[in-house]
Amino acid sequence: MARIAIDAMGGDYAPKTIVEGALWAAQEYGIGLELVGRKEDIEAEISRIKSIGYVLSDCGTKGRKRRIKIDVDKIDYTITHCSEVIGMGEAVGQSIRRKKDSSIVCAVQAVADGRCEAVVSAGSTGAAMAASLFGLGRISGITRPAIAVTLPRTEKPVVIIDGGANSDCTSGMLTQFAQMGVAYAKLSLGIENPKVGILSIGEEEGKGNELVKETYPLLKQMHEENLIDFVGNVEGKEVFKDKADVIVTDGFSGNIVLKVTEGSSSLLLNMIKSEFKSGFIGAIIGLLAKPFLRRILKRVNWEFFGGMLLLGVRGISVIAHGRSSAYAMKNAVGAAVKVLNKDINSKIAEKIK
Amino acid sequence: MARIAIDAMGGDYAPKTIVEGALWAAQEYGIGLELVGRKEDIEAEISRIKSIGYVLSDCGTKGRKRRIKIDVDKIDYTITHCSEVIGMGEAVGQSIRRKKDSSIVCAVQAVADGRCEAVVSAGSTGAAMAASLFGLGRISGITRPAIAVTLPRTEKPVVIIDGGANSDCTSGMLTQFAQMGVAYAKLSLGIENPKVGILSIGEEEGKGNELVKETYPLLKQMHEENLIDFVGNVEGKEVFKDKADVIVTDGFSGNIVLKVTEGSSSLLLNMIKSEFKSGFIGAIIGLLAKPFLRRILKRVNWEFFGGMLLLGVRGISVIAHGRSSAYAMKNAVGAAVKVLNKDINSKIAEKIK
Repeated sequence: MARIAIDAMGGDYAPKTIVEGALWAAQEYGIGLELVGRKEDIEAEISRIKSIGYVLSDCGTKGRKRRIKIDVDKIDYTITHCSEVIGMGEAVGQSIRRKKDSSIVCAVQAVADGRCEAVVSAGSTGAAMAASLFGLGRISGITRPAIAVTLPRTEKPVVIIDGGANSDCTSGMLTQFAQMGVAYAKLSLGIENPKVGILSIGEEEGKGNELVKETYPLLKQMHEENLIDFVGNVEGKEVFKDKADVIVTDGFSGNIVLKVTEGSSSLLLNMIKSEFKSGFIGAIIGLLAKPFLRRILKRVNWEFFGGMLLLGVRGISVIAHGRSSAYAMKNAVGAAVKVLNKDINSKIAEKIK
Repeated sequence: MARIAIDAMGGDYAPKTIVEGALWAAQEYGIGLELVGRKEDIEAEISRIKSIGYVLSDCGTKGRKRRIKIDVDKIDYTITHCSEVIGMGEAVGQSIRRKKDSSIVCAVQAVADGRCEAVVSAGSTGAAMAASLFGLGRISGITRPAIAVTLPRTEKPVVIIDGGANSDCTSGMLTQFAQMGVAYAKLSLGIENPKVGILSIGEEEGKGNELVKETYPLLKQMHEENLIDFVGNVEGKEVFKDKADVIVTDGFSGNIVLKVTEGSSSLLLNMIKSEFKSGFIGAIIGLLAKPFLRRILKRVNWEFFGGMLLLGVRGISVIAHGRSSAYAMKNAVGAAVKVLNKDINSKIAEKIK
């Protein structure tokens, strides 16, 4: 049975939603857990769930909670106590080095020591990245690890890489992101021949910033060598069309894409809600329309994909959203489960050589 | 009476929607027009509108068209013939220099010569920018002109600067964008003391890419000198919250914000439409919900703001969306009208000194 290390202390609602989501995932995917953090806090949380027998969580639709039965006795879990937690605002490099007994460092160590196959954390993204990089090491040949993020679309989802690990990038890094993104899209999303694009402003070759102009010919050459299927520049509005399956970009722009998508979608949904509240008839129609809008909300919700995979490190490391609910955490663990036993790292290593 | 030069040949549906929108704007805002382009094409379009007496256009809601009565005889317009057009795919620098008789170059010239107070073009953004820069010149002290874009939000709109004029920027350029953006938000949107933020990935000082890290202390210093009200980093999802009124960024990231907002909103609205089409009851509820969704569509539609202002050139130059409908074009002219007689350029020049 595969075992996943959980940073039980990371996340805005930790350890509550983290432990809930992890137990839910263990039950749903049939995996074992190593819960890492303050022992008494984790135990208290587990006792609570055990005594009531369920977890209460929305399932991708805010405001409507469901009871998910959890049979704690059937779940194979261990608790690894550690005393420290790295907070969201802390300087990453320092805290990783100083707080050797922090939940994220210890959770990564469980993978490094071979007790677990993957680690999942909803704590500080920077800390999770740094802990994974120091604890697991880079895949040989990889310049910098990158975050692969999956965004929902009408048909197939799209992978954005880098989603925020590297604010400033070189063209060489971007060509590696392309290779890693392709491996991820194939193994995790089952896309046979992923089309690779580069995020830019303008469709034609030669449009974009210096980084894009430098990277474009390199990706084109990789295309000619049949290493990737490169489709050229992808504009911001084309991200959500079927032009590319993997979109390569620096971590700054990639993160902007994710966060703007989150922000504009939630603005739009809030506008719809308030529009329906603007009168009696509106309220009734809004009530009728609710189940439909809820289905949409579920489809576009980031919680559905739960976690972003850190690619390029020697192990599986999933970074979950800081605001993860139990549902989001369950799906983040699911994102790790999807690539378990698929040897994604050796497949990346092969490509990079 | 103020007079506005219109590049009648620029835009995907030119000259039809361009002439329609310009006449509509002339009537609505009481301005005169100089329509620049192929004389026979423009005249044919005007005759058509004159004979039917109206313009048929959606008004920010796709698919539902309204008739807008246009009394052509009451509109003060002239036509300036020129023979050439610069296409969307053409290399900008070359075409501006070679095609001296192109509609965008001649329309800018009408402002440079003092016949018009502003120029509006829905043609190639690059060509409109280059023509404006060469034809009007830079405001003294400004390193690079930038595009100010207004995005709708629940309460006040937000100004993003640069929206795509400069793919690669320096920190010095960004501090000027802040000054220009503040002048624009005050004069065009009537925001008294605009809060200025810098687009970044992470809220705290010290987070972001190299450009952000370099620019942050400069903006902070301007804040301490009471030149601007600087609120710090603005993450992608905070763009749509009330954190900042003016968001400073390089043209690459700025354009990504705009296009991703456009793309993700239209994905969401399409999902809603298809969800309502998924069954008989859904179709009925969808029909009832339509007027509500239409109001939303109108509020979030880029066509409502129609045009982006090119700031930093000595004159008023508005760049409209390539896919401008008559409604979008009318609003783009409206964006120019909003800053007429407000002496925005000398106000920018004062700040920069």
